[in-house]
Amino acid sequence: MDPIRIAVVGMGKIARDQHLPAISGNVAFGLAATVSPDDAGITGVPHHASLDALLADGPAVDAVALCTPPQVRYALASQALARGMHVFLEKPPGATLSEVAVLEDQAQKTGASLFAAWHSRFAAGVAPARAWLSDRRVDRVTIVWREDVRVWHPGQAWIWEPGGLGVFDPGINALSIATWILPRPFFLESATLALPGNRAAPIAADILFRDSRGAPITMDLDWRQTGPQSWDIVVDTDAGTLRLANGGAVLTLPSGTDHAEDREYPGLYARFATLIHTGRSEVDTAPLRLVADAFLRGTRLAVEDFDD
Amino acid sequence: MDPIRIAVVGMGKIARDQHLPAISGNVAFGLAATVSPDDAGITGVPHHASLDALLADGPAVDAVALCTPPQVRYALASQALARGMHVFLEKPPGATLSEVAVLEDQAQKTGASLFAAWHSRFAAGVAPARAWLSDRRVDRVTIVWREDVRVWHPGQAWIWEPGGLGVFDPGINALSIATWILPRPFFLESATLALPGNRAAPIAADILFRDSRGAPITMDLDWRQTGPQSWDIVVDTDAGTLRLANGGAVLTLPSGTDHAEDREYPGLYARFATLIHTGRSEVDTAPLRLVADAFLRGTRLAVEDFDD
Repeated sequence: MDPIRIAVVGMGKIARDQHLPAISGNVAFGLAATVSPDDAGITGVPHHASLDALLADGPAVDAVALCTPPQVRYALASQALARGMHVFLEKPPGATLSEVAVLEDQAQKTGASLFAAWHSRFAAGVAPARAWLSDRRVDRVTIVWREDVRVWHPGQAWIWEPGGLGVFDPGINALSIATWILPRPFFLESATLALPGNRAAPIAADILFRDSRGAPITMDLDWRQTGPQSWDIVVDTDAGTLRLANGGAVLTLPSGTDHAEDREYPGLYARFATLIHTGRSEVDTAPLRLVADAFLRGTRLAVEDFDD
Repeated sequence: MDPIRIAVVGMGKIARDQHLPAISGNVAFGLAATVSPDDAGITGVPHHASLDALLADGPAVDAVALCTPPQVRYALASQALARGMHVFLEKPPGATLSEVAVLEDQAQKTGASLFAAWHSRFAAGVAPARAWLSDRRVDRVTIVWREDVRVWHPGQAWIWEPGGLGVFDPGINALSIATWILPRPFFLESATLALPGNRAAPIAADILFRDSRGAPITMDLDWRQTGPQSWDIVVDTDAGTLRLANGGAVLTLPSGTDHAEDREYPGLYARFATLIHTGRSEVDTAPLRLVADAFLRGTRLAVEDFDD
């Protein structure tokens, strides 16, 4: 089978750190081009300032990976799908739920594969956690996601703008895991969002979800954490406690702890190749829906200004 | 066929003005009970203070119509579905999207009919508008929904609380019509929400949607309108202009104007009976999804305090 000729659009940190290595490590793909208005690309690969320019003058491509901020992703995805190209959407898949629904509809009509990627679902501990939980009774879930935004998102202004998710940008990773591993669907019961006076997006949030059996799922998100950082999910069940630490990488079951190698982005690209080869799309918006619910239903609390 | 024994839960203004007359006017239903903590019910019909009390001591019921504020609706709906009862949800169907998804899942498992009712879709002009638009090219849509909240929602505190929708409570009626009559799906591109300093929910909003062909759909919502009130949708097409006025009741096409009798709630109950008799559910969350997107994506603007 010929490699899928893919273009990476939006050459920011995530593209360079994760997408390019994962693509070069997967024989199903060949990197055909890069696209970015303010970047020179990489040596030996055609580079264009915009998707328009690539489509007008560039090499033929079969697929695009969209690594831009979510606020501009719809227009790029729609343009690519209209050409019958397959589309990989970084998380979150869009700035709104309705635009993702429109893209899904468009992909169905063109027959192209649309993949809403949730990288944390491919963390090493997640698949075994899902398997272990599949026939457990879940009594309580505690999610703690506390990190220092100055370390992890330095100078990323878009993340604070409307359509950026603020502290839900990392928090949605926790939700992508929880919606995947827990055996029952859950919904948002209450939320408090902490909003700095000079920012449009929350810097912290306290959320109570509940699953369809009534089990509470608490989520503590905070971007003001200095010192030790936490990306932990603890699930109390009828068969003991499951703990996923380091964003899903390290799984502890009553029987012991598993440390496995990080394979998030290689896992995503393997999945994208399978979707393309089998003519399918995968668009699960449940994590973004829960975030939208927090914005819709949450109580807003003014907190002190934040400057980075 | 025996009448469907129905209980009306939440005996506020909408229950008395619309639900009870529509139920008594439809032979498919028999009013079996009313439920409300702070209301005496109506003469000759069993009344209970809570759904718990009705289920423990009351007459047998096959279905419930939930007319409570959305913040408490999930628990009631879930309890009713668990008993195999059919559920009619007033609009909006919940305080969050995720709770409606869980209810839909539950209804599917129990085989009960769940109906997310959008009364404005049953306004007299809406079905002919949908038919007329089905093969038009839509070039521009203008939605203006301006009313005086002091007249239409006097003292309804819940509407201003988190989970109440503020000006989107009437605005979602416009969206329920637009999502139904327009031939293409649309999504939210930008939004500005006006928030009084002393309220959790917006008093006004300016929104730009765009359909999948790129046509702009503007929505102007304002609760501060005194004098003439507006609930109008104007659709410019390749075959001339369609105008729906009075919240969908009055349709004007290039060929002339139709005035028809108000049949919104009778239409809803006829539909609910059909769903029950055919064992189906109808849960379209597209209008609520667009509102959630406005909260997620919108820019918030502080405006002067509002007291009613």
